[in-house]
Amino acid sequence: MMTKDVNPLEDILLENILLKNERIDDLLCNGFCLIQNPSYFCFGMDAVLLANFVKAKKSGRCIDFCSGNGIIPILMRAKDKGSKFYGIEIQKEVSDMAKRSAQLNKCSDTVEFINADVKKVRELFSHDSFDTVTVNPPYINGDDGLHSELSALNIARHEILINLEDCVREGAFLLKQGGTFAMVHKPFRLPEIISVMKKYKLEPKRMQLVEPKRGKEANMVLIEGIKGGRPMLKLLPTLTVYNDDGSYTKELLRYYEEMPS
Amino acid sequence: MMTKDVNPLEDILLENILLKNERIDDLLCNGFCLIQNPSYFCFGMDAVLLANFVKAKKSGRCIDFCSGNGIIPILMRAKDKGSKFYGIEIQKEVSDMAKRSAQLNKCSDTVEFINADVKKVRELFSHDSFDTVTVNPPYINGDDGLHSELSALNIARHEILINLEDCVREGAFLLKQGGTFAMVHKPFRLPEIISVMKKYKLEPKRMQLVEPKRGKEANMVLIEGIKGGRPMLKLLPTLTVYNDDGSYTKELLRYYEEMPS
Repeated sequence: MMTKDVNPLEDILLENILLKNERIDDLLCNGFCLIQNPSYFCFGMDAVLLANFVKAKKSGRCIDFCSGNGIIPILMRAKDKGSKFYGIEIQKEVSDMAKRSAQLNKCSDTVEFINADVKKVRELFSHDSFDTVTVNPPYINGDDGLHSELSALNIARHEILINLEDCVREGAFLLKQGGTFAMVHKPFRLPEIISVMKKYKLEPKRMQLVEPKRGKEANMVLIEGIKGGRPMLKLLPTLTVYNDDGSYTKELLRYYEEMPS
Repeated sequence: MMTKDVNPLEDILLENILLKNERIDDLLCNGFCLIQNPSYFCFGMDAVLLANFVKAKKSGRCIDFCSGNGIIPILMRAKDKGSKFYGIEIQKEVSDMAKRSAQLNKCSDTVEFINADVKKVRELFSHDSFDTVTVNPPYINGDDGLHSELSALNIARHEILINLEDCVREGAFLLKQGGTFAMVHKPFRLPEIISVMKKYKLEPKRMQLVEPKRGKEANMVLIEGIKGGRPMLKLLPTLTVYNDDGSYTKELLRYYEEMPS
């Protein structure tokens, strides 16, 4: 992602929109941008891949858990993967930044960020009311390996304020029958992911592993479950991120470049 | 697998060992052979990969479910992956053929084939008595797509006489705490495989996908669970079977050639 060149006129406009340490990154998709702050969790390839992986209809109502800087709802909006998008984020400063990104992209009417705890999302929305739930949750179990303070980065990476089961349970609550739950996670937790999804009747239907290089162990898994779906997994070909020479593979670039026609 | 050249002397010896339509295939591993009959289910790459994939100690007590012509116990014996091996097969003719393969390989003392129903295996062996359970079960759910008669081939391919949960449940019963359950199956059933393994406390710890060619969807999954294991999956690099030119990949050949030193 490149940092966007802003012209002086825009500079003035941005004065109200950008805070100290923040930057604007070009999402390379239909002119959409995102405000980021390196002190928080900046979006990674995980989020971009998830926004591309998820199957979502143009008319759908979508909600993103652990939304962070808002990359997933904004990218899905840029790709017309839904008509209304919500992003739930527990950290107020981060959620506020996502709101300003929606403003910047002039899509606050369709992309709404809410500073709330995903565990209490059923106080905000009724059950069976969404077509799509996405989540790029903290990957690391509990406080495994966590020796530092409760920083924004740690909250994004570790299951401190929310865990896998919380995300799946609340997603299942919000989804309509036949609705789609899509998540990006780490393969080492796959057995737990699958068994928790099945527990809440989100049957895993599509899965793709992502390997850093050809022949290396996959370090990401994209998985999609259908509420009330019939068991039968479609395993997509493994996605390779880098060629042997360190350049991005064609398949990966296609993910970044995919836009609605 | 090549059909083995037999000399006239051996021919005479074999008269008592080979039935009509049977042939002897060289397992290309420490001189071991296998009797096969094309009217039954001939072993495939699945079985060879599973016998290689499974981690088993030299001193271990091993049992193979749905053992068919006995390929897995005989190959594991050839590779010194255990000290005592049992193979359970419900079809009498097939089990008898496996017994003759053990005779042919002069290993009937360590490799024993039993004509029995895996669902009743606990009548033969006590719980917590094995180090390793292997299984290359019928892949196809129930009688899905089954329009022909109850042939030996259909019994080997479809869940007619045994299903996934039967295999996992009985395996869990026989295994010692910390024992290994290893299975080869189809990726489309992975969610069910994982949730059934977890149900019976066989925590999935190692997994490898097998893709026919680079960039194609995987069509086999090798999975290993440890009885009472702690959740944490090791996902091995995907194994590719064929090069683009149709020849076997180096990694695949290594699997076939791996022998104890």
